[in-house]
Amino acid sequence: MNPLTKGSKQPPPIKGHKIRLYSNRFCPYSQRIILVLDAKKIQYEVVNINIANKPDWLYEKVPEGKIPALEVENEEILTDDLIIVDYLEERYHQHPLYPKDPLQKAKDRILIEQFNKVVNAMYRLTINIGRMNMNDDDVIAQGLSVFERELADRGTPYFGGSKLGMLDLMIWPWCERADNLKVFGYQHLLRRDRYKKLMEWRNHMTEDTVVKKSLLHSDYHIKYLQSYRAGMPDYDLILNSN
Amino acid sequence: MNPLTKGSKQPPPIKGHKIRLYSNRFCPYSQRIILVLDAKKIQYEVVNINIANKPDWLYEKVPEGKIPALEVENEEILTDDLIIVDYLEERYHQHPLYPKDPLQKAKDRILIEQFNKVVNAMYRLTINIGRMNMNDDDVIAQGLSVFERELADRGTPYFGGSKLGMLDLMIWPWCERADNLKVFGYQHLLRRDRYKKLMEWRNHMTEDTVVKKSLLHSDYHIKYLQSYRAGMPDYDLILNSN
Repeated sequence: MNPLTKGSKQPPPIKGHKIRLYSNRFCPYSQRIILVLDAKKIQYEVVNINIANKPDWLYEKVPEGKIPALEVENEEILTDDLIIVDYLEERYHQHPLYPKDPLQKAKDRILIEQFNKVVNAMYRLTINIGRMNMNDDDVIAQGLSVFERELADRGTPYFGGSKLGMLDLMIWPWCERADNLKVFGYQHLLRRDRYKKLMEWRNHMTEDTVVKKSLLHSDYHIKYLQSYRAGMPDYDLILNSN
Repeated sequence: MNPLTKGSKQPPPIKGHKIRLYSNRFCPYSQRIILVLDAKKIQYEVVNINIANKPDWLYEKVPEGKIPALEVENEEILTDDLIIVDYLEERYHQHPLYPKDPLQKAKDRILIEQFNKVVNAMYRLTINIGRMNMNDDDVIAQGLSVFERELADRGTPYFGGSKLGMLDLMIWPWCERADNLKVFGYQHLLRRDRYKKLMEWRNHMTEDTVVKKSLLHSDYHIKYLQSYRAGMPDYDLILNSN
């Protein structure tokens, strides 16, 4: 189904114990939630929204029409991706994603926050190119080095240990989109010899059944980015390409 | 003891089960953590730092010399105030501060995030006055109205119910400093008739034994703010005034 736009009909209320994610296919924050829902094997439905042209009913449903938003029991709405994933972890006990030890959990949450530096620099370099910082190269290099060292220190294939955990999932959407940097002239930022562990990790991740479920090929991310930069973000891209 | 500055000696390692907060007396983010430590009756010590002139050893101890930072077992360091308070809540089960229901907890955490709009507008109006937004008045009025309505809906003296909880404590440091707005010409933003419930709540809070422990009188907050605006933040203020 096409992502819903202005003028589209509001979907009927959810039934039973199902939950619904108001999402966008190309939004990395939406993907964070989808990854957690899939990893915890929670039943859910997705309503994709065209965020360049949001339906009117969305503003009634969700404060400020924010995407992503999760609809749960009694039509309650939750916003803010990191609060939503924490909610899912606490509400659904199966397949826990955070470390059990509160200290290790806190340290992983600090790393998730720290990854924002990489996210923001990537955003400036590939999307909001008018706002580039002189040192965005360094920000990305230093940011990724922290995670490279962390994987080496942990000595496990995933940040979560022998299988993926919350930290893996929270940084994944931007790692899936890393080739965006290459296309726009920043291939030197992703040197294989500098990030050996991270490159191995990326291979493990792309082969994981949970990650595969929402994985989009680099080509789509790049095409979307090009349409966005041209001022006409194409949210129907995946449908049109099939 | 005076807050520690450049050149000061590093305090000896913590012993036993104690934890240590590297803090600043006038920093509302540090106060958030102190309020939670006091509410949960956790044993801790405070090392106050002069953040305008930080000691060199702080940068070795804490990434980027960030304040507030919590030192826990094995000299591990945690940063980021909200991650720290969540850690304390999970590590120390006594006197729980979040609602038990994951949905209500998530909703309270969203409100804590939302309060940032008020915090940022207060900051622009009173401290970073070069960066004022045309609509900061509206931001504060709308922001506070959300909390006024919320208290009315809950029908309880505190956001946490019959006693204070995490949401109460996380917004408190800026409510304690509300008179800063009056001094700098924004008294119309704090009209008693508009925020009846919040004003009652503020009275309950100032009389609470936990809140009283770290409470500073408006006069100190205002004097500090004046020294800050004059480009010479006076972190020894409380000592000098005694």
